[in-house]
Amino acid sequence: MKRRDFLKAGATGTAAAAAATALAAPAIAQDVRQWRMVTAWPKNLPGPGVAAQMLADRITALSGGRIEVKLFAAGEIVPGNGVFDAVGQGTAELYHAVPAYWGSKSKGILLFGSQPFGLTAPEQAGWLIHGGGQALYDEIYGGFNLKPFLCGNSGPQWAGWFRTEINSVDDLKGLKFRSTGLASEMCSKLGMAVQAMSGPAMFQALQSGALDAGEFIGPWTDSALGYYQIAKNYYWPGVGEPSSAEECAVNLEAYNDLPDDLKAAVSHACASLYNDVLTEYNTKHAQALTQLVNEHDVMVRKLPDEVIVAMGNAAGEVITDLRSSDDELVKRITESFLAYRALMHEYMPYADNGQMNARLLDYKYD
Amino acid sequence: MKRRDFLKAGATGTAAAAAATALAAPAIAQDVRQWRMVTAWPKNLPGPGVAAQMLADRITALSGGRIEVKLFAAGEIVPGNGVFDAVGQGTAELYHAVPAYWGSKSKGILLFGSQPFGLTAPEQAGWLIHGGGQALYDEIYGGFNLKPFLCGNSGPQWAGWFRTEINSVDDLKGLKFRSTGLASEMCSKLGMAVQAMSGPAMFQALQSGALDAGEFIGPWTDSALGYYQIAKNYYWPGVGEPSSAEECAVNLEAYNDLPDDLKAAVSHACASLYNDVLTEYNTKHAQALTQLVNEHDVMVRKLPDEVIVAMGNAAGEVITDLRSSDDELVKRITESFLAYRALMHEYMPYADNGQMNARLLDYKYD
Repeated sequence: MKRRDFLKAGATGTAAAAAATALAAPAIAQDVRQWRMVTAWPKNLPGPGVAAQMLADRITALSGGRIEVKLFAAGEIVPGNGVFDAVGQGTAELYHAVPAYWGSKSKGILLFGSQPFGLTAPEQAGWLIHGGGQALYDEIYGGFNLKPFLCGNSGPQWAGWFRTEINSVDDLKGLKFRSTGLASEMCSKLGMAVQAMSGPAMFQALQSGALDAGEFIGPWTDSALGYYQIAKNYYWPGVGEPSSAEECAVNLEAYNDLPDDLKAAVSHACASLYNDVLTEYNTKHAQALTQLVNEHDVMVRKLPDEVIVAMGNAAGEVITDLRSSDDELVKRITESFLAYRALMHEYMPYADNGQMNARLLDYKYD
Repeated sequence: MKRRDFLKAGATGTAAAAAATALAAPAIAQDVRQWRMVTAWPKNLPGPGVAAQMLADRITALSGGRIEVKLFAAGEIVPGNGVFDAVGQGTAELYHAVPAYWGSKSKGILLFGSQPFGLTAPEQAGWLIHGGGQALYDEIYGGFNLKPFLCGNSGPQWAGWFRTEINSVDDLKGLKFRSTGLASEMCSKLGMAVQAMSGPAMFQALQSGALDAGEFIGPWTDSALGYYQIAKNYYWPGVGEPSSAEECAVNLEAYNDLPDDLKAAVSHACASLYNDVLTEYNTKHAQALTQLVNEHDVMVRKLPDEVIVAMGNAAGEVITDLRSSDDELVKRITESFLAYRALMHEYMPYADNGQMNARLLDYKYD
């Protein structure tokens, strides 16, 4: 029984019911936690806003109602960019956002979101679970009084929407371009004039000419935001963000106060959501791409290898900067990421990548 | 408190404790389910045996102890190949195995395990969650009184261990080869003399000459079974099984009898384990491959494209056989699989596959 219903029953019941209420109320009040989840998203924003609501519902379900999670959209309690501080300080018990937003706290955090020329979404999960990543994620967020979990991933991003074709590295120089996080550092090293802004703001800026080009996520979300109306060249691969993780972080005292089964409810709710979110993006990106090409005359173009290699070198410099950070925790996170990346970089040609390349050969299948 | 402890306390306690027991026992007895999980694996077999124990523990934890899952290895209650029937009949409440084992029940079931030239592990999860796969998985298992969930994946398999090099399609003809499931049908269509047997039996058969070659899983598990001692050519890609799913199935009455929060505990325990298992295989396969090459003189070889194409055509015939099945449910499952595969086949070159190929170009990164 939910606490609200219970109190209502007590208030309107008979004397006998009221007596039962008086006996049982302290046990129930003690046993049900009312948790506020603040988010970086408008309510029900396709993608992360919907995922945040799913996570809130899943924690409530898995806790058997002993944690009732109520979701608040960006701005309802705190602004979207204030959720990290708000939860650390205990204004709310948990948030749903992306690590990519917290580079001002520490650049080490950005590696838990996405890394230029780094890990795909399954590999990112692998680094955290089997490559030592979660312990480092706990350590750096612990310094801000937070316990973090990955709970989704928007998968491989696209290189972006360009008014003109990109045929050489020189074509990137001076380009007014929207990007975020470590990807924007990669772009800056190539001489691009990088600006950070929200997805809707990017539409306006492309329209007004304040931007020449920009990247946001991939076909599903990008379609909804209408970039194809202005810039018709849609470039891949989005090597600046080979995947982009979504996270949930819980106030550390609130988390430590949980019994083991409720800790499991929170952590496994997050883990179980990862593929729901990732595969929703993959599925809907695939469906949306067909529409973009067939109905909106979008030109799908691959970046020339020369440009990808230049981006790789720039990404290498970004990672080298992190390796030589003055902050020893940032250095340890970077080394751990690099070790797991090296393992997957070496192995994937025989594994998923090998399978997908083989599948592209010319044979009769259906 | 666990039921066992409680009864013990009742038996040895004071009169007051015994009185309390008499009052509380019915509520507790009603609230704690003692579930037996039977498995297709020896106890703690690296890979699936360990995963089965993790799943048992996770369901127990997420249920707050209201479902106590006790694991039984193959042969303890029923033989490993008898778990499907045993759980359908209610001899045990749930099992941990692989769909690939139940082709004798229906060939439609095999598509939930692995498909030649089919889905990678993330794509397989995507088909079930967002491509209509879970509803069909429920439907076909429902006919056997089971409620099924995917709960892991051993990822992309390898083509196998060969004494001699494979340079042409002709080299495959008459080869005595160990394989399973739909992959073995693909091999048969190429004239290979296919035999099914366990992993340990494959070692003996390679040693005695009863087999010329064989495939089991990938570097981690294959190393443990010692095939490299006999056949030094290790071929990839394992297109017969681009991924291989592990599953949990629950007796349908036992599942339907659960309240919603315990249904969530079971389903999200399974979902949350998928990446734990998948990324453990990926990580340990990658580590084991280095050892195989550096310490055991294994030659890593790619199948010639001509051979992969012939395998693709044979795989296409296997799928065409399923499409033209007399069983309309098998046909529907096949069409659903093909639709999701077509979507991912079209999209992955821009997504994960595009990222991994870009990562392989020549730039300076670390």
